[in-house]
Amino acid sequence: MSSAAILQNYINGEWCDSSANEYLEVINPATTELLAQVPLGTSADVDRAATAAANAFSSWRRTPATERIQYLFKLKALLDENFEDIARTITQECGKTLEESKGEMRRAIENVEVACGIPILMQGQYSEDIAKGIDEFVIRQPVGVAAVIAPFNFPGMIPFWFLPYAIACGNTYIIKPSEKVPLTMQKVMHLIEQTGLPKGVVNLVNGAKEVVDAILDSPVIRAISFVGSTPVARYVYSRATANGKRAQCQGGAKNPIIVLPDADIDMTTRIVADSAFGCAGQRCLAASLAVTVGEAGKTFTEAIAQAATSRVVGYGLDSGVQMGPVITAESQSRIKHLVEQGIAAGAKPLVDGRESLISDYPDGYFIKPTILQDIDPAGAIARTEIFGPVLGLIHLDSIEAAIQFINSGQYGNMACLFTSSGAAARKFRYEAEVGNIGINIGVAAPMAFFPFSGWKESFFGDLHGQGHHAVEFFTQTKVVVERWRQNWSRQF
Amino acid sequence: MSSAAILQNYINGEWCDSSANEYLEVINPATTELLAQVPLGTSADVDRAATAAANAFSSWRRTPATERIQYLFKLKALLDENFEDIARTITQECGKTLEESKGEMRRAIENVEVACGIPILMQGQYSEDIAKGIDEFVIRQPVGVAAVIAPFNFPGMIPFWFLPYAIACGNTYIIKPSEKVPLTMQKVMHLIEQTGLPKGVVNLVNGAKEVVDAILDSPVIRAISFVGSTPVARYVYSRATANGKRAQCQGGAKNPIIVLPDADIDMTTRIVADSAFGCAGQRCLAASLAVTVGEAGKTFTEAIAQAATSRVVGYGLDSGVQMGPVITAESQSRIKHLVEQGIAAGAKPLVDGRESLISDYPDGYFIKPTILQDIDPAGAIARTEIFGPVLGLIHLDSIEAAIQFINSGQYGNMACLFTSSGAAARKFRYEAEVGNIGINIGVAAPMAFFPFSGWKESFFGDLHGQGHHAVEFFTQTKVVVERWRQNWSRQF
Amino acid sequence: MSSAAILQNYINGEWCDSSANEYLEVINPATTELLAQVPLGTSADVDRAATAAANAFSSWRRTPATERIQYLFKLKALLDENFEDIARTITQECGKTLEESKGEMRRAIENVEVACGIPILMQGQYSEDIAKGIDEFVIRQPVGVAAVIAPFNFPGMIPFWFLPYAIACGNTYIIKPSEKVPLTMQKVMHLIEQTGLPKGVVNLVNGAKEVVDAILDSPVIRAISFVGSTPVARYVYSRATANGKRAQCQGGAKNPIIVLPDADIDMTTRIVADSAFGCAGQRCLAASLAVTVGEAGKTFTEAIAQAATSRVVGYGLDSGVQMGPVITAESQSRIKHLVEQGIAAGAKPLVDGRESLISDYPDGYFIKPTILQDIDPAGAIARTEIFGPVLGLIHLDSIEAAIQFINSGQYGNMACLFTSSGAAARKFRYEAEVGNIGINIGVAAPMAFFPFSGWKESFFGDLHGQGHHAVEFFTQTKVVVERWRQNWSRQF
Amino acid sequence: MSSAAILQNYINGEWCDSSANEYLEVINPATTELLAQVPLGTSADVDRAATAAANAFSSWRRTPATERIQYLFKLKALLDENFEDIARTITQECGKTLEESKGEMRRAIENVEVACGIPILMQGQYSEDIAKGIDEFVIRQPVGVAAVIAPFNFPGMIPFWFLPYAIACGNTYIIKPSEKVPLTMQKVMHLIEQTGLPKGVVNLVNGAKEVVDAILDSPVIRAISFVGSTPVARYVYSRATANGKRAQCQGGAKNPIIVLPDADIDMTTRIVADSAFGCAGQRCLAASLAVTVGEAGKTFTEAIAQAATSRVVGYGLDSGVQMGPVITAESQSRIKHLVEQGIAAGAKPLVDGRESLISDYPDGYFIKPTILQDIDPAGAIARTEIFGPVLGLIHLDSIEAAIQFINSGQYGNMACLFTSSGAAARKFRYEAEVGNIGINIGVAAPMAFFPFSGWKESFFGDLHGQGHHAVEFFTQTKVVVERWRQNWSRQF
Repeated sequence: MSSAAILQNYINGEWCDSSANEYLEVINPATTELLAQVPLGTSADVDRAATAAANAFSSWRRTPATERIQYLFKLKALLDENFEDIARTITQECGKTLEESKGEMRRAIENVEVACGIPILMQGQYSEDIAKGIDEFVIRQPVGVAAVIAPFNFPGMIPFWFLPYAIACGNTYIIKPSEKVPLTMQKVMHLIEQTGLPKGVVNLVNGAKEVVDAILDSPVIRAISFVGSTPVARYVYSRATANGKRAQCQGGAKNPIIVLPDADIDMTTRIVADSAFGCAGQRCLAASLAVTVGEAGKTFTEAIAQAATSRVVGYGLDSGVQMGPVITAESQSRIKHLVEQGIAAGAKPLVDGRESLISDYPDGYFIKPTILQDIDPAGAIARTEIFGPVLGLIHLDSIEAAIQFINSGQYGNMACLFTSSGAAARKFRYEAEVGNIGINIGVAAPMAFFPFSGWKESFFGDLHGQGHHAVEFFTQTKVVVERWRQNWSRQF
Repeated sequence: MSSAAILQNYINGEWCDSSANEYLEVINPATTELLAQVPLGTSADVDRAATAAANAFSSWRRTPATERIQYLFKLKALLDENFEDIARTITQECGKTLEESKGEMRRAIENVEVACGIPILMQGQYSEDIAKGIDEFVIRQPVGVAAVIAPFNFPGMIPFWFLPYAIACGNTYIIKPSEKVPLTMQKVMHLIEQTGLPKGVVNLVNGAKEVVDAILDSPVIRAISFVGSTPVARYVYSRATANGKRAQCQGGAKNPIIVLPDADIDMTTRIVADSAFGCAGQRCLAASLAVTVGEAGKTFTEAIAQAATSRVVGYGLDSGVQMGPVITAESQSRIKHLVEQGIAAGAKPLVDGRESLISDYPDGYFIKPTILQDIDPAGAIARTEIFGPVLGLIHLDSIEAAIQFINSGQYGNMACLFTSSGAAARKFRYEAEVGNIGINIGVAAPMAFFPFSGWKESFFGDLHGQGHHAVEFFTQTKVVVERWRQNWSRQF
Repeated sequence: MSSAAILQNYINGEWCDSSANEYLEVINPATTELLAQVPLGTSADVDRAATAAANAFSSWRRTPATERIQYLFKLKALLDENFEDIARTITQECGKTLEESKGEMRRAIENVEVACGIPILMQGQYSEDIAKGIDEFVIRQPVGVAAVIAPFNFPGMIPFWFLPYAIACGNTYIIKPSEKVPLTMQKVMHLIEQTGLPKGVVNLVNGAKEVVDAILDSPVIRAISFVGSTPVARYVYSRATANGKRAQCQGGAKNPIIVLPDADIDMTTRIVADSAFGCAGQRCLAASLAVTVGEAGKTFTEAIAQAATSRVVGYGLDSGVQMGPVITAESQSRIKHLVEQGIAAGAKPLVDGRESLISDYPDGYFIKPTILQDIDPAGAIARTEIFGPVLGLIHLDSIEAAIQFINSGQYGNMACLFTSSGAAARKFRYEAEVGNIGINIGVAAPMAFFPFSGWKESFFGDLHGQGHHAVEFFTQTKVVVERWRQNWSRQF
Repeated sequence: MSSAAILQNYINGEWCDSSANEYLEVINPATTELLAQVPLGTSADVDRAATAAANAFSSWRRTPATERIQYLFKLKALLDENFEDIARTITQECGKTLEESKGEMRRAIENVEVACGIPILMQGQYSEDIAKGIDEFVIRQPVGVAAVIAPFNFPGMIPFWFLPYAIACGNTYIIKPSEKVPLTMQKVMHLIEQTGLPKGVVNLVNGAKEVVDAILDSPVIRAISFVGSTPVARYVYSRATANGKRAQCQGGAKNPIIVLPDADIDMTTRIVADSAFGCAGQRCLAASLAVTVGEAGKTFTEAIAQAATSRVVGYGLDSGVQMGPVITAESQSRIKHLVEQGIAAGAKPLVDGRESLISDYPDGYFIKPTILQDIDPAGAIARTEIFGPVLGLIHLDSIEAAIQFINSGQYGNMACLFTSSGAAARKFRYEAEVGNIGINIGVAAPMAFFPFSGWKESFFGDLHGQGHHAVEFFTQTKVVVERWRQNWSRQF
């Protein structure tokens, strides 16, 4: 296995070796094939990348926005052309199905498209005559060097919540992919290279905690974007801000969906199953709790059990497969353990996916769709982010009780409602204390032109990724107040 | 002296006693008259205010924005009516001249005016058909309870960079005024009370560090606005964010103004003198360094020395007075000490205001306008925020050198250029790494409809006070993705 | 009766006599009391007002926006203070109930509130480095002199869709009220005068067609806002634009409301009755056709007949009155005639309000609520704007048929849907070709911060009244492209 | 010559023959080579195109914006790839130099880029709780079928001021190119076809006045964009609006540039020569009058005479050529005649380009750069749009006089100032009554993300081409007011 390629960093326009002494194996979680070895880089790697980015900044910032976006137009075209190839890579290292990988890349590309609009998005405001003869305006200028610390579950998409805006606004950039899934960004970086972007504008550093800490402590890096679990998000937010940086840190979730009795049960079941079991439940917007109200308790429960049982689990590149493995053996164990605890605490395993041998891939890190019924709304299983294909069922009396349950949680990433009632939808979106709301939607992932709006412990900061928020985050306002002589008696 | 009134807090719609055991004397810095005693409150006071604010939130948030702004329209009218009275209070406790106090209150009122526009400012965006039959929109909802920790130098204005937006957006609020100048907010709070605002929406807590820490640690308070010195700003930012809050923390400054040889020297001198010596130099936008280029070295130096010498120092309520005292005896000592150090390090006291007895107010904390010439651009006096009426002079060869000097500093609050050249102005605003730029302006304080844009160590966070930034800071985005059944065969 | 006061014009800051030779009697339509005589002014009056406005423009335009809005803040306060009095005047000259008059004035004041936000609403955009060293920005400057030609049905509100924005943006203004209801603007003008607005900024000219034509032909007046019937809107639009002006002309309507079987019939009936019979049906957003689908055909028909029959008709100042007279005897005759024609064409008079003697006001121009059933969707009564308290009922098979019916009409002012279905609401707002949509709303009058969005023959132009559209209409964009020398070798 | 190809129309996704009976020869104005024959289409062609566009609308409007822009991304790529080829076509049929043709196409492509941002640009606004429980939002929906009537001078660029926005917003479109230069849009249409855009979305109809009138009178076409001379602009605006359409009509210009004594004469001369003589003076932003102040009268006059004399005139495809012919023999005669009249009226021919034989192209429609000195500011030559390479010189005493001169003109397309003074620049942009201002810029053509802002008789309408204005023009606002039942006692 040691013969697998060692991944390189991309710094200052060149592929180069990491200064790492340690390496991690990148494994296909379905086949357990060794895909590569990723270096666990050092602070020296970060320094080198930060220096390259800092050096590139002065000239990049002075490149007009209309020129900067030409690289993004090229990048969009390259991503379109290499769409299938990148999607396959995602599936190979991350496990999700090819269709899911494609969906991920569509959103990535969409963010590039939105960032192509930076000449308008980045405009400041102008006021004539704030007082007689005095004008005032605000310019948006880039922040400097920025970095993303990305998670394993969307290796292709999440860096694109930030990167296109960052560079379109004139910043230079460092990508730190998850050490579990570093291959996708390698491919993407090759495409970025092909755009002819000036050296140092985008850099790629592989690694784990040492690299993260070096990024957080670097005096050169001005802005940090992070997506991951809540404890790490809190850590990153706290350390980045203590170092005086701006930071936007997205954490975990425990996303409830509510099924009202007037919901279309067929549609609801299909959508909820996709949300709960799609990407093997490893989405930060995965539905992990289904709260039924009234008759839905019966109809939905039956239907979702059927949907879970019949879901085709396997290798994401094989045709017909509807769900892949989880990311690692450790993750597999952890999920099984949490299910076990839940059952111990009284939950009823309506569908139990723990025995999940996939015959063609006997070593794969599979867990089949699992549904726990009658879970305690106040118990651990209803509060803990499992990050696997496990759906908990809760039955409550009313929409009010359901909303109250949602609002009692620590997270605020997403909540969804299934109903045909306009009134219920309005009540829900008005009152549910989460940042992303779905109405008859199972994965309420905002389009690239909307902020990905986590609330509560699902997000630390004030400006989210994507769209206007990203532009605000990657620029700093410069206000100019101008007065010119108004006495014309002696001149011209 | 102990007979002076003890100030109360205003919590949940009522004036009430602090739980403090310690008190600080509020002294008129010109006359040294004892004005009041301010309680150094405890965390219990904060808890009480936070609870009141939290309780008020649910109903206030549900009050339509068009109704919420009616209170702001009333507040504007009341502030207009009580303009003179509040300005006098500012002068009494803070020392600045009455004209300066009025200027401060004008900006305060302007922020109320801008916040009256919240029905538009707070609108979200709506997209039809993000996919066939699916719509997506973003709503702005208030954050919850927010608080301002205010400094001594603008007791009337600075809370208004935040408060009007916070409550207009549906948040509830806690004001912690500087314990040195608590009287202005007492007056303002009485006016707020007169607007009939529901109880608990705005609360006032007096105190010092214990109150600050309790605010920073309160699990109920979601957003912190701070203005003060850089070390404290860093502390507040770090502690607030470690507690998961959003925070915007404005720090200190050392603001350079550049005088080019083509500047109108008369106008420049008048404006720079107002900036350097106005408010006794205790503005975070005070010019504290004047960098001359070319001939301006001679002409400006002579003129500014003359302006400094002739400036009338005294009690701000007396007519004809152009500059008042600094805030405390400690501050007075500190400033004198810094000037002394500067001279010891080689600076030449062109105008020495340290002997500054004002005969009618022999005990006042006065320092007269002081100008130190030939200061070392790399030395302490060129880098330290003095926060007194002390202007350092530096002579450099070119505008490039001047900009380089500006950019070498740790702060980024303001830099100004005096010139008649459009080209110099453009170069300056493009390159100077500060957030507020003045062109032939001495105090580049953004209007209420622009963000007060500190950079570097003058600001921690990403969203500033005032205008759109304040609205963004005091709201959280909620994205809604909606799909409704599109099959009409069986119904209606 | 000839002893009634002759109304004056207000031009250049002074009340002055019209040059009219003819006068029209202003009659209280409930009591037939003579209220005043309004001069039918001449083009000389318009010339005088236009000259005054043009002369005032140069200085008003140079008054900073922050100062200009101070007059609007004062105006809001004065309108609040005189709210009851103005509302009574509206009722006296226009006939609607006092509550309706108050509702009208609330929207008027709301527009003043929104226009107070002009410093932000009027900002242009700024782009740095459109090419290296070149900046570009857009300033909004006022258009010059603008005028509104107002209709009789909302004497207090409609001028405020335009006026506050016009003057806040720096334009000067001419109001031409409807000659049928000139008293309300007389009162308002007195309040405007009390604000201390500079002379010539707002002018009032009374008159009828000659005045209208003089406004349309005046070379000085740059922008025309009109609200009235479609034929006149078309005339005004055509003549104003032929003279090179910008114009926004709102015409008539025939507003359908759809009642689905899942609607809350009680709520629906109450709301539809208010819409159809409120203001005696003389709203451009009055529901004039109710289209029932399915069972609603029975339930709604019964309920609305009951509501129509029990509606209390009388003098709007009398307590308990729910509906007043129509505007003139001519109008009364015309409405009766149209009802008669409808019946002749086959409609069934479910409720016949033509015999409508109100004993206390036997001469008043009353028509009681009238409902015509089974009207022909393609017939005249379903296509003609009646502008009286007459509701036609149509029954259709499906929501598709109902939408198709709506879209087949010539007008596009408003359509409303009553339902509890989110899906129906979405389909309706997506497909109905009208500019103002109500979902369980009977009078979908946009708030002041939204455009009043007529479509098709209900509006000619592209920018509507209120909010952003009004700001765009009352400003013209000025783009500035700036390049400054960038070679610094020889200077400073 | 009759053997030249007859151009086709492109309607409903197919190239098809015009129904014309008459044809016009398309001639290369430098070589007089016959390039093609353009049919002078009939109203039947317009009907066919309008019907195709109307039929395509329903489906195109329902295609999500994110999909619609994919065609624009493809179009941008195709325009980039075919950049040189299209530019050569422009030069061949229109006469300008290849570099000028490329510049034109860059702006065309830039407009496609901006329109790629339509998902954000087209968003409406959303307000929660305009009253308790009632929400209001505005959606932007397309207008329907729209058309551009394009002029001869920028055959590649001007349709792109409108087309990309129109179709991105969901409208369908008809292009009517100038019959003098129809070949460029033929090429462009082939590229549009290659994008795979659904049939009927963009249509091309060749022709002259009959086609124009049919477009203006078509009941199906809802919005008209026109660029041409002022008399025709006025005609188009008047007739389109009389037919109830929205219209934006750009007319002629007489653009003055002011040279102050502190201008950099070398840079100024180069820029002004490019503006006055570039595109043979056939730009609507060509400098046609240079007003000198003070010493600039001498220095600039000498320098511009030298620049005019030395300008290399010839066939735009030949290397080294700096200026091509005017568009037609008629135009050539007309320009010579106007110059003759100017001289007869007292102007002094400082440089006389009327004798302008280019030996390699003896029949070409050339006029060499011409400068008329000492022209009468009030005379015809100072007021008439010549649309040829003729620059008039005027000398005035002061910047005030220069601005007064500008503002006395009937047009308001552009005015430029050459100076090094920030104060002069501010005064100029504040006071000059034109929509496009250049400071040290000779052709102040707004970037695609700014409106092309003609004023006075240079523009009829209120919304200009490009950017936000184009989006506003090509959409209509639909306001939705929603109320849902809030009583939850009986359900869920």
